[in-house]
Formats: sequence, C-alpha cells, structure tokens
Amino acid sequence: MAEPSPTFLDRLETPCLLLEEARLRANVARMRAHLDALGVMLRPHLKTAKSLDVARIAMASAEGPATVSTLREAESLAAGGVRDMIYAVGIAPAKLPRIAAIRAGGADLAVILDSTEQAEAVAEHAHASGDAVPVLIEVDADGHRSGVAPDDRDTLVAIGRRLTAGGAALRGVLLHAGDSYGLSDPAALAAAAEAERVAAVSAAETLRAAGLPCPVVSVGSTPTARFARDLTGVTEVRAGVFMLGDLFQAGVGAVAVEDIALSVLATVIGHQRAKGWIVVDAGWMALSRDRGTARQAVDQGYGVVCDAAGRPYPGLVVRDANQEHGILALRPGSDASLPDLPIGAQVRILPNHACATGAQHDRYHVLDEDGRVAAIWPRINGW
Amino acid sequence: MAEPSPTFLDRLETPCLLLEEARLRANVARMRAHLDALGVMLRPHLKTAKSLDVARIAMASAEGPATVSTLREAESLAAGGVRDMIYAVGIAPAKLPRIAAIRAGGADLAVILDSTEQAEAVAEHAHASGDAVPVLIEVDADGHRSGVAPDDRDTLVAIGRRLTAGGAALRGVLLHAGDSYGLSDPAALAAAAEAERVAAVSAAETLRAAGLPCPVVSVGSTPTARFARDLTGVTEVRAGVFMLGDLFQAGVGAVAVEDIALSVLATVIGHQRAKGWIVVDAGWMALSRDRGTARQAVDQGYGVVCDAAGRPYPGLVVRDANQEHGILALRPGSDASLPDLPIGAQVRILPNHACATGAQHDRYHVLDEDGRVAAIWPRINGW
Repeated sequence: MAEPSPTFLDRLETPCLLLEEARLRANVARMRAHLDALGVMLRPHLKTAKSLDVARIAMASAEGPATVSTLREAESLAAGGVRDMIYAVGIAPAKLPRIAAIRAGGADLAVILDSTEQAEAVAEHAHASGDAVPVLIEVDADGHRSGVAPDDRDTLVAIGRRLTAGGAALRGVLLHAGDSYGLSDPAALAAAAEAERVAAVSAAETLRAAGLPCPVVSVGSTPTARFARDLTGVTEVRAGVFMLGDLFQAGVGAVAVEDIALSVLATVIGHQRAKGWIVVDAGWMALSRDRGTARQAVDQGYGVVCDAAGRPYPGLVVRDANQEHGILALRPGSDASLPDLPIGAQVRILPNHACATGAQHDRYHVLDEDGRVAAIWPRINGW
Repeated sequence: MAEPSPTFLDRLETPCLLLEEARLRANVARMRAHLDALGVMLRPHLKTAKSLDVARIAMASAEGPATVSTLREAESLAAGGVRDMIYAVGIAPAKLPRIAAIRAGGADLAVILDSTEQAEAVAEHAHASGDAVPVLIEVDADGHRSGVAPDDRDTLVAIGRRLTAGGAALRGVLLHAGDSYGLSDPAALAAAAEAERVAAVSAAETLRAAGLPCPVVSVGSTPTARFARDLTGVTEVRAGVFMLGDLFQAGVGAVAVEDIALSVLATVIGHQRAKGWIVVDAGWMALSRDRGTARQAVDQGYGVVCDAAGRPYPGLVVRDANQEHGILALRPGSDASLPDLPIGAQVRILPNHACATGAQHDRYHVLDEDGRVAAIWPRINGW
C-alpha cells in the first residue's frame, strides 16, 4: 500500500502511529550482526510489529523464518509467502484445524506445547490427518509462565514419545526467559541469557539421550538476545520488540532511546496553564494502558514527548492519560521549562511498550529519512 | 450482521469478546429510568461500546442523541442514520474539515472547546463556510483534565462572544466529573454529582447573564450519573461505561458485578500445578493493560474468571498477563480451591475496564438468553 508521493506529518489525522524505517532497518541489522557473531539464526518474532512489510525486513529471506503470536499473523504471513513459522503460544486442541489449513497451504507452521494432554491431542490430529505437525516442547527457562521444568525428564520424554508415536514430528525445544524483562544490570542480563541457554541445552540433551530427535533449540527475548555472550548448543533466537524499541526496553538497557522507531503523532488541543499541563488528542486509546516503566528506575509516565521531528523535549512526559486525552507535563523535579506548544501543534510520543501501543492502531505511517510519510503499512491485529 | 443461526460458545475461536444483550438492555433501562425520574435526557456516550448496534439500544431514537469520542465513531453513526451528536474531545482546528463533511451529510454534530484560540479557529471556519457549527464550552468540574474554570467569567464570555460574532452557534456548556472515578462512597459520589451540577449551572448562568445563549447544560460520567439525586438546571447527562459495566465501576459502586455485560472468552492452554496456575490464551492483548482496580479496595488482577456460563469461580482471578497468556490463580488469602480446568476448557473473564478491553477487539459476539451467539456486532475502532 505505497502512497503515490510522500506526505508531510501535518497532513495526517491524529492520533496515528509513525514508524521510522531507517531506525527499524538499523535495529534489525544490529541484532542480526550480534547473532551472526554468536553463530545462531534469528527467527524474528512478529508479535510486536504484526506486519508483513516489517517481516520482510526482519526475516533472512522472503520465506522466513518467523515467529508469530496469533494464528491471524500466521495466516497473513503465509498469504504473503512466508513458509517457515512457529506459533509460539501453547496450542489449544481447538486451534488444530486452523493450523492444518495454514499447513495445507504450503507453510511449515510448527506449534508448541508443554503437557502430555496437548501432545495426545496433536498426536491424534497427526494420526487422523496424516500431517506430521512439527512440535517444539516448551521448556520453562525461569518460572515466568509456561513450560516443562528443564530437569523434568519424565514429562519431557513422555511428551516426545507420545508425539513421535502418534505421527507428529518432534522438532525441538523452545524457551522464553521472560523474567529478563525485570532486569537492567548488564551482568544480570548476561546471566539470564546464559541460564536460558543452559536450560535449553539441558532439555535438548535429555530428549536426545532418550533417543528422541531435537534438531531445533530455540530461545529468546529481546533482553537475553541482546546480552547473550555465548549461545553454544542453541540453534535460533526469537525476539521481536528490538525491531521497534520502546522506553521499557530502554530502561532494561536492551535498546537506546534514540533507536526507538515507533511513536504516536498527536495534536495539542488545550492547556491548563496554572497546572503546567498541555492536553493532546492521544490518550491511552492511542498509547495503550501500558505503564511498564512505572516499575523501572525512570518512570516515563505514558511516554516521552518529542517535537514533530522526533527530538525529545527535555523533561516532558505524558503525565496522565484518559481515553482520548493525554496530559503532558514536566517530570517531577525537572528544571526544564515547559515548551510553548500552541493549539494545533503536533508532538510525537515515544511508547512505553511497542507491542501494546502498536496494537491500538491498524496501520503504520512509515517515515523516510526526510521525516515524510512514504508508505502506509497495515498491521495484523486480532486473532 | 446477524448470523444465520445461534452458535454455541465452544465453536468460537478464542480469545474473543462476548456481550450479553439482556444485561446491556437492562443496564440501559435502569439508567434511563433513573434519569427520567430526575427529568433529564440521556445522551449515551459511545466511547465504550463503539457500536452502531449498541447505540440503537442506548439512544432514545434511531436518530440520537449520542456522544462520541472519535470522528470515526461520528462518521459511522452518521452513516447509520444518527443525526444528533456531540464530539466530546476538545476540537483541534485541523479536524474541522472532517466535522464539516459529517455535518454536510445531514448530522447535527457539535464540538467542544475551552480556549479563545479554538473559538477563533471555529469562528473563522464558520464564517468561511457559512456553516454555524454548534459549540459547547467545556467547563472544568473538578480539576480532572480540560475545561474553563466555572468561575472564570472573562474566559467563558470571551469564548462565547468570539463564537457568536464569527457565526458559530454557542449551544451550551459541557462538563465531565472524571475525578468521580476515584471515589467509592455513595455520599461522596452524590456530592461529586452535585458539584458537577453546580459548576455546570453556574457557568451556564454566567453566559446567560452576559446575554449569550446557553440552551444545553451537559454533564456526565457513569459514577455521577448513577449517584445524582438532583439535576436541576441540567438538560442532559452523558455516560457510556454503564451500558456494559466493568469491575472498576463495580469497585466504585456504579454497577453490580452481576450486571457486567462484557467478557472475554478464553481457552485453557496449560498448567503450572506446583504454583496453582492455570494458563489461558487471553493475555493483555485480549484483556488490555488496564489495571485500574489495583488502586481500589479489591484488586481484581486482570479480571475475574467465570465459567463458560458466566458464573464467577470463587476467588479465581487473572493474576498476571503476558501478551497472549493469562495466568489464572486464586486471589491471595482465598480459601477457595482451584477449579479443575483441563486443557481446552473455556472460561469467561470479566474486564477491569470495558472501554479498554473492548478496544482490543473488532467485534462483539452477542449472546442471547440461552448463552448462545445470536449475532456479531462490529466495533468502530480507530480514529
């Protein structure tokens, strides 16, 4: 959906979502170089960008590989020619018909699971359909949410045997060190990455020692991907938010604020001068309710406020948000002065959480190097 | 978009949004009866439901009146025959061409503003176009966000004179007592409603005393609408979330938990039995990041968990949420036992905040009295 000619920001309806293509490309190149040096493949996670156009920039080839968080992402990417995907949310048996339809279209879509009940359902499906659905066993890296404990040999082997006996294809193990999001010290992040690697390799070796195949050892999170120093035994890394970046990942130290590619364009619609407030037309509906930075060393409110060219105003954040109203104010203790932003002025707001802010919008307005809108890229929202 | 025949919940793809039509209709009837008794008109706010189908249930007639939070809502309702609307977010001058287009289609769409700069822009637009755009002056009820102070006679009159001199139509004053969301004591809520009324009537009298017209005195928020005892001098009440209800409004006391018409249907995809966790396929992407109940007496996590028929499981809440994972667990201190919910079981999750949870979805699955899906109603997301 390329536009016929670049558009200036002041022609856009606000609020809307902006994406700086050069920053996106640089973020992808940086992660790819880092993982190339460690000798592992990047399997970009599209849960953040939810866009075929972004996938084509992030993937090694037009056919993949990719990670998806919804079957709608899988269907959209498959329709765009992507052939190698993992649906990285534990499979519900009722979703197998949709998985089968995507696979019947020619895409190699793998599923994940962490219980013998799910393995039974997938094995029955594989047996009945004759389609050897590939499966990765989800292993728990750090107690964050799902997954078999890496030292639970009995469950790992029971799942693997049930799958292979039923005609499904055991493809490997998959981990997500989600607790890394709570860290910010580089040494602790490197340790989290190493713990994720060790758990992955241990589970893989358990399966192999039982005579089961385990060609893929998949790990990932943006923080552990960024801080991993050694990935021996790992075959691929999944990460997604690094492509766009956000203030939360900047607080972790996984991206730099100046690399954040995503922002929300907003317009000034009022002032409460006695309080030092500037009111804009981007509230939590445009920014999301995500307040993840509230738990970090620097609380960014609902986002950092920049001018229309993307330069942050010193000390200016979105102090509070109603549904369609954002209240801009200086951070408590800031010695900066409030910028003079008249009614109608445009600002850009850097998001706390790219996954959540992006999801509030149905398209990206893609900026070229001159800060003009050179394309519109649709997002793949919903399930 | 009626479906050919009712569908059972177990045929739905999860996560998805459910709406119990009977509860919606009862919530609307209850609010209408309350406001009828107080002698004021209900101008339902569609910011929560964002649906033409819901609007037709909530409005007094197929032509209105209605309140909207986005121009896309205004455009969609206008296309569906709604003729009487207020766009209740301070107008940005760049939005006047879209306002004009909606008005040119025959809808009486009014705007709001709280500054002489905005009045100047609207007056210039009215003068140039010959369209007497109706305007309500936003008045600040309680310091919540926008609005002229009710005792700031100079600004109120200056805005009114600039509008009428330029050919715009001064239609009245509009207030939103948003700080009422922070209350839960009925007496304090009644006092907030009375303060909103007094501020509204005072500002209206200031305009009238200056010889300016002020036919409309518009107030509203679900809590103050629900707890108002006297609305003398007020002509209409705007409220929206009461139609669907949510756990936050239940915490305020403005709705009952058993009247909540909105829920998210989810499927069990895993267990961490040692921790007492049940993992479902509805994370914050389906529930929203809204954690408004965290500030209330009862923290509902990311929502209260019910069985597929909508009966809450004692003590069971969504303890935490990742993007596509919800972690169900008993509330701390609960003496209930964890229900036995196998892989594939469906649950329904009552939302913290109907506006935020609804916005994560593009449609409602509308349930009839038998709990079957009798219709699909699209939502009007975006701007």
